[in-house]
Amino acid sequence: MSEERIWTAALVIIGDEILSGRTQDKNVSQIALWLNLQGIRLAEVRVVPDVQDAIVEAVNTLRARNDYLFTTGGIGPTHDDITVDAIAAALGVPVVIHPKARSVLEGYYATRGGLTEMRLRMARVPEGADLIENRMSGAPGIRHGRIFIMAGVPHITAMMLDALSGTLEGGKPLLSDTLGCWVPESEVADILSATEKAHAACQIGSYPFFREGRVGANFVIRSTDRQALDICVAALADALAGAGKETVAGGI
Amino acid sequence: MSEERIWTAALVIIGDEILSGRTQDKNVSQIALWLNLQGIRLAEVRVVPDVQDAIVEAVNTLRARNDYLFTTGGIGPTHDDITVDAIAAALGVPVVIHPKARSVLEGYYATRGGLTEMRLRMARVPEGADLIENRMSGAPGIRHGRIFIMAGVPHITAMMLDALSGTLEGGKPLLSDTLGCWVPESEVADILSATEKAHAACQIGSYPFFREGRVGANFVIRSTDRQALDICVAALADALAGAGKETVAGGI
Repeated sequence: MSEERIWTAALVIIGDEILSGRTQDKNVSQIALWLNLQGIRLAEVRVVPDVQDAIVEAVNTLRARNDYLFTTGGIGPTHDDITVDAIAAALGVPVVIHPKARSVLEGYYATRGGLTEMRLRMARVPEGADLIENRMSGAPGIRHGRIFIMAGVPHITAMMLDALSGTLEGGKPLLSDTLGCWVPESEVADILSATEKAHAACQIGSYPFFREGRVGANFVIRSTDRQALDICVAALADALAGAGKETVAGGI
Repeated sequence: MSEERIWTAALVIIGDEILSGRTQDKNVSQIALWLNLQGIRLAEVRVVPDVQDAIVEAVNTLRARNDYLFTTGGIGPTHDDITVDAIAAALGVPVVIHPKARSVLEGYYATRGGLTEMRLRMARVPEGADLIENRMSGAPGIRHGRIFIMAGVPHITAMMLDALSGTLEGGKPLLSDTLGCWVPESEVADILSATEKAHAACQIGSYPFFREGRVGANFVIRSTDRQALDICVAALADALAGAGKETVAGGI
């Protein structure tokens, strides 16, 4: 029996606005959820400033040890948009104008003042790249082999992800179920640990909360195997019931 | 004239729940904003899974090249809380029970079922550490030299940051002003670039948006020098006005 192949992706978020605290990132969670539907696990994320060396280091480290690499941010027309140059440098290829990107932008800006030199910046890609469709603003995302260069604005990223759905090879999606319980997690920590140990195909995460003046926790059970997951969830609910703790299926 | 010293921090977010997309991170922005008030710049962020090797690699790489290192997550009482062990491994020190943390937890759990073995896990620290106060739940944060080990739950992290306010050496805070403009950023990209080049002490970021059926952008000007910042903001507003683009002070 060979071990099941797990497909992984890494994400590099490029943007001073995230590191300054000005902008709340929303791409990590939407990309993570989307990847899981493709059977790919988000394995690590880095947030780096708009500095070429920092982008190159992150891209080269992470693409070497993951099946796929995604980036968000820095693909607009302004001087602080340096993602394409940085990724081309990381790959050791020149930056070229993509003919289809140019023609898409020409069409988009035909009624919006024309395709200026600054706007043409959005047609620049690392040599060898394909485009990822963006119906929203004309400026496409970019695919270069296993690297996916996406917008920073979350709803544009969402459309680019949509355009990519079903095109990436992956494995089994990670399934999860949640049991909620009005209990301090410290009171049942030994039950969680023993249940996880007894179910090798599953991981159990414990996420405490404080709500309505009471403490509780959600226990998230994860596995790529539906049957193993169901058995583990039932075993955990039984063990907690045995300790007098009622659980809520689906979480609280 | 010596160049101004810039103090930097890195942040390692430890948590499968962020990488799975289940939980939306809120610590990056609150820690970034808090750091800036201390005169410290958030230089890089990594999100890593609940896996010791991944935590050790991130901690050792980032503490070597930043003044401070913060972590969030993984300091609770359950089996998936491995942050303290991982950081002790990264530092090459043993894990010990901190006597003050034990007594704080004893007090907290006196009326809550007593300090069990699992709960005592929350008093474990890398040898040589001090505590960071947490009025909320009894479980303290941990300071080890330039490393700060914080909770994952954002409002507990906020209280730990509050307890640390004014205790870290930093430099001048990065100041910022925003000009909003109902214009596609591609139309004024050359003005932004030229203005930034003419004001060496400032950086200009451009953040486009789509709202009320119209496109616009906020231009964020950043500097540690108040006077240089004011001059740059005025110059940018003038240059945009000269191109027939009205700006909104403070952003849109």
